[in-house]
Amino acid sequence: MRAQAETRDAVWERRTELPLFYASLVFLAGYAVRVLANDAHSLWRDVASVVVLVTWFCFIVDFLVRLVLSGLRPRRFIRLHWLDALVVLLPTLRPLRMVKVHDAIEAKHHDRPRRSLYPRVITYAGLSSVLLGFSGSLGMYHVEHTDPHSPIHTFWDAVWCVCQTLTTVGYGDVAPVTARGRLIAVGLMTFGLGLLGAVTGSFSSWLIQVFRREGEEEGPSGGGSSPGAPR
Amino acid sequence: MRAQAETRDAVWERRTELPLFYASLVFLAGYAVRVLANDAHSLWRDVASVVVLVTWFCFIVDFLVRLVLSGLRPRRFIRLHWLDALVVLLPTLRPLRMVKVHDAIEAKHHDRPRRSLYPRVITYAGLSSVLLGFSGSLGMYHVEHTDPHSPIHTFWDAVWCVCQTLTTVGYGDVAPVTARGRLIAVGLMTFGLGLLGAVTGSFSSWLIQVFRREGEEEGPSGGGSSPGAPR
Amino acid sequence: MRAQAETRDAVWERRTELPLFYASLVFLAGYAVRVLANDAHSLWRDVASVVVLVTWFCFIVDFLVRLVLSGLRPRRFIRLHWLDALVVLLPTLRPLRMVKVHDAIEAKHHDRPRRSLYPRVITYAGLSSVLLGFSGSLGMYHVEHTDPHSPIHTFWDAVWCVCQTLTTVGYGDVAPVTARGRLIAVGLMTFGLGLLGAVTGSFSSWLIQVFRREGEEEGPSGGGSSPGAPR
Amino acid sequence: MRAQAETRDAVWERRTELPLFYASLVFLAGYAVRVLANDAHSLWRDVASVVVLVTWFCFIVDFLVRLVLSGLRPRRFIRLHWLDALVVLLPTLRPLRMVKVHDAIEAKHHDRPRRSLYPRVITYAGLSSVLLGFSGSLGMYHVEHTDPHSPIHTFWDAVWCVCQTLTTVGYGDVAPVTARGRLIAVGLMTFGLGLLGAVTGSFSSWLIQVFRREGEEEGPSGGGSSPGAPR
Repeated sequence: MRAQAETRDAVWERRTELPLFYASLVFLAGYAVRVLANDAHSLWRDVASVVVLVTWFCFIVDFLVRLVLSGLRPRRFIRLHWLDALVVLLPTLRPLRMVKVHDAIEAKHHDRPRRSLYPRVITYAGLSSVLLGFSGSLGMYHVEHTDPHSPIHTFWDAVWCVCQTLTTVGYGDVAPVTARGRLIAVGLMTFGLGLLGAVTGSFSSWLIQVFRREGEEEGPSGGGSSPGAPR
Repeated sequence: MRAQAETRDAVWERRTELPLFYASLVFLAGYAVRVLANDAHSLWRDVASVVVLVTWFCFIVDFLVRLVLSGLRPRRFIRLHWLDALVVLLPTLRPLRMVKVHDAIEAKHHDRPRRSLYPRVITYAGLSSVLLGFSGSLGMYHVEHTDPHSPIHTFWDAVWCVCQTLTTVGYGDVAPVTARGRLIAVGLMTFGLGLLGAVTGSFSSWLIQVFRREGEEEGPSGGGSSPGAPR
Repeated sequence: MRAQAETRDAVWERRTELPLFYASLVFLAGYAVRVLANDAHSLWRDVASVVVLVTWFCFIVDFLVRLVLSGLRPRRFIRLHWLDALVVLLPTLRPLRMVKVHDAIEAKHHDRPRRSLYPRVITYAGLSSVLLGFSGSLGMYHVEHTDPHSPIHTFWDAVWCVCQTLTTVGYGDVAPVTARGRLIAVGLMTFGLGLLGAVTGSFSSWLIQVFRREGEEEGPSGGGSSPGAPR
Repeated sequence: MRAQAETRDAVWERRTELPLFYASLVFLAGYAVRVLANDAHSLWRDVASVVVLVTWFCFIVDFLVRLVLSGLRPRRFIRLHWLDALVVLLPTLRPLRMVKVHDAIEAKHHDRPRRSLYPRVITYAGLSSVLLGFSGSLGMYHVEHTDPHSPIHTFWDAVWCVCQTLTTVGYGDVAPVTARGRLIAVGLMTFGLGLLGAVTGSFSSWLIQVFRREGEEEGPSGGGSSPGAPR
C-alpha cells in the first residue's frame, strides 16, 4: 500500500539513504587522510584525493537526480532543501545529514520506543557538534598549518581552537590568523550558537522536567531513586 | 474603508516606508564608501560625505514630520518610538528598521502564507545581526584604524573582531583599544546578548517543535522523512 | 483597613524604603568618590569615607531592626532575606534592592497600568546589570590600580573589563591579576550568568510573543505596523 | 509494606548511600591533599594516596555489587546508570552524585515542604558547578603545574582558569597548555554549557514567574512586598 503511494523521489531517497551514509563516512575519512597525512607517502594522499573527489561526485549526482525527480524548478527545490544544497557545496557538512540518517536507522532496526524528547534533541545537537567540530578542525588545520604566523601547528591545536569556538569560551591562545581560517571560525561560531541554544535549552527543559516529575512522584516518606522499586 | 479610517501619520508612514528604505541603503553604502575609501580619490569621499549627510537629513525630517503628525508631546512620542529616535541619532542602526520593512514587503508582494513563527524570528534576528555587524564593523574600523596601538589595521580585522563580539566568543587577538572603539564594542555586546538570546531561544524551541512533531507523526513502522510521501 | 492589618515590620519597611533608597545612592556616590578621588585633596576622601561608614551603619541598623520586628530566629530570618543579609555585608550590592524600590515607586506615583511582563524583566535585569557593573568597576579599580602588573590603570579600564565579564565575551586584553580583583570578577561572572539568562530569555520570549501577536492580528491584506490605525 | 516490596538492589542502594557519600568526601579530601601537598612531608602524600585508592576501590565494589544485584546484563546496566559508570572511571566526578544524595538527605531529615521547582534546579546546578569546578581545578593543577610553559603555577591559578571556563568567559590569560589539561578544560566546557543552560534557564523562568505572580497579586493600590502582611 505504502509503496504504491510513494512518489519516485521518495523511493530514490529511501534507497540511496544508506549507501550515501557510507559514502559520507568514506568522504570524511578520505578528507581526513588527505589533510592529516602531509608527511606520509604521496601515494596515500593521491588515493585519498581520488576518494574525496569520487564521493563528492556521488553527492552531486544524488542532488541532481533528486532535483529532476522532484519535478520542481531548481530555485524552489533549493529553497526547500537548502541544507542539502549547502552540503553539496561543502561536503564536510554532510555529517549534519548523517545524524538524521542515524536517527532513522535506530528507529528502524531496534524497534524500541523512542527516547523522550529532550534527550533526543541533546543527542542530535551533541552529535552534530562533534561531527561539525571534527570537520571544522580538519578544515582549519588544512588552511592554517602552513601559515608561519599561525599558532595552529598540529591537528590537536585545531581541535582545541574549535572546542573553544563552539562553546564560545574563546581563550584566544590559539586563534586562526588566515582569512580562510577565520571564515571557518565564523561559520563554527554561527553554528555553535544554534547548537549551544539547542543543547542548553533542551538540557535545561529536561532537568526541570525531571525535577518536576520527582516532586510529583515523591510521597511525604521521601522515597529513594531506585528504579527497580514498585511504585 | 481602511484608507478613510487611517490617521495621517499612518498614511505618511505607509508612503515613506519604501523611499526611506532605499535611502537607508544609500546611507549605508555612502558611509561604507566614506569609511573604506581612505586611499581613493578625495572626490569619491566628498561625494560619499554629501550622500551621508543628505540621507541623514531625510531621516531627521521624517522623524520630525511623524512627531508633528502624531499630535503627541515629544517626550511621549520618543518613549513610544525610542528605536526610531535612536536611529535618528545613530543612523548606522537604521538597518534594524530595514528588517521590519523587509518583512512587510515580503508579506505584501508575495502574498503567500507567512512562514512559521520560529524561522521568522531566526531570520529577523539573523538579518539584524548581519546588518548591525556590518555597521559596527564600519564604525569600529573608522575609529580604530588610525590608532597606532590598535590591532585593527584593515576592514576585515574589524569584521573579525565584531564577529567575536556578537557571538560572545571573544578570542581577544583583535580587540579595540580606543575609547570610541570600546564603546562600539560594548554596544555590540549588549545587542549581541539580546540577539543571541533570540536566535538560540528560537532555534532551540523550533528544533524541539520539529522533534515533537516527528514523534507524533511517525507510526510504529518508522516512516522516513520524504516530504513528497502522502501521509 | 489595610494599615490596621499591617504588621509592625511591614510598617517599618514601608516607612524606611525611600530614605534607605536615598541612603544607598549616597553610599554609592560616597564610595565612588572614595575610590576615584585618589589624587584629590585628602579632605574629600575623608568626607567620603565618613559618608560611606555612616550609610553602612544605617543599613546594619535597618537590618537589625527588621530582624527584631519580624520575631523570627536570626537563622530563619537570614534564610528568608538572604539578599538583604548579603547587602549588609557588601553594601555595593545594595543597588540590586534599589531596582525593586524603583519599581514600587513607579507603580505608586504614576498610577498607570504596569508594563507587560517581559519588558519589565528586561528592565529589572538590565538596571541590575548596570548598577552591579558600576559597583564592580569601582571595586575592581580599587583593588587593581595599585598593582604594578595589572593592566587596569584607569577606571575606564575597569569598566571595560567588567563589560567583557558580564557579557561573558572575555577578550582578556584587560583582566584582573590580583586575588581580590579575580574574586570580584568571579562574582560578576556568576551574577552575569544569571542576568544574562534573564535578559536573553526574556528578550527571546518577548520577541516571540510580539511576532506571534503580529501573525494573529494581521489580516491577509498585510496591514502595516502603524500604531494609530484602528483595528 | 514498602520494605517488603523493595528489591534487593534498592535495599543496597539505600544502605550504602550515606557511607558512600562520606567515602566520596574522604576521596575528594584525599585527592586534594595528594595534589596540593607537593611540598609537604612525603608521609602525608603516601597516606593520601592510600586513602584515594581505598575509597576508589569501594566505589568499584559498590558498582559491581549493584550490577550483580540488578540482574541486568552489564551493557544494559551501564546504559541505565551511565553517570555511575562514568563516576567509577573518574571518581572526581563523584560529587555530581553527592548533590543528589544531599537532596535526598535534606528531604528525609528536615521533613519540611520541598522548595519550589526553579530554586531547587538552581541549587542543584550551582552545587554541581562548585563541586565539578573544585575537582576540575585539582585535576588541572595536577597536570599543569609541572609544565614549564604553563601559566598555571598555583592552585588558585587553576581555580581562576576553571571559573573562566565554566562561565564561558575565557579571558585566556591563564589557559592550559598540556594535552591532559586541555582535555580537562574541554570536559569542563561541555559540562559548563549544560550547567549554564540549566542555571540561566531556571533563573530566567523563576524570575519571570516571580514577576508574573507579583503582577497578579498586586491590586491597583500598589501594595508593597511585605511577606508578613495578610492578604
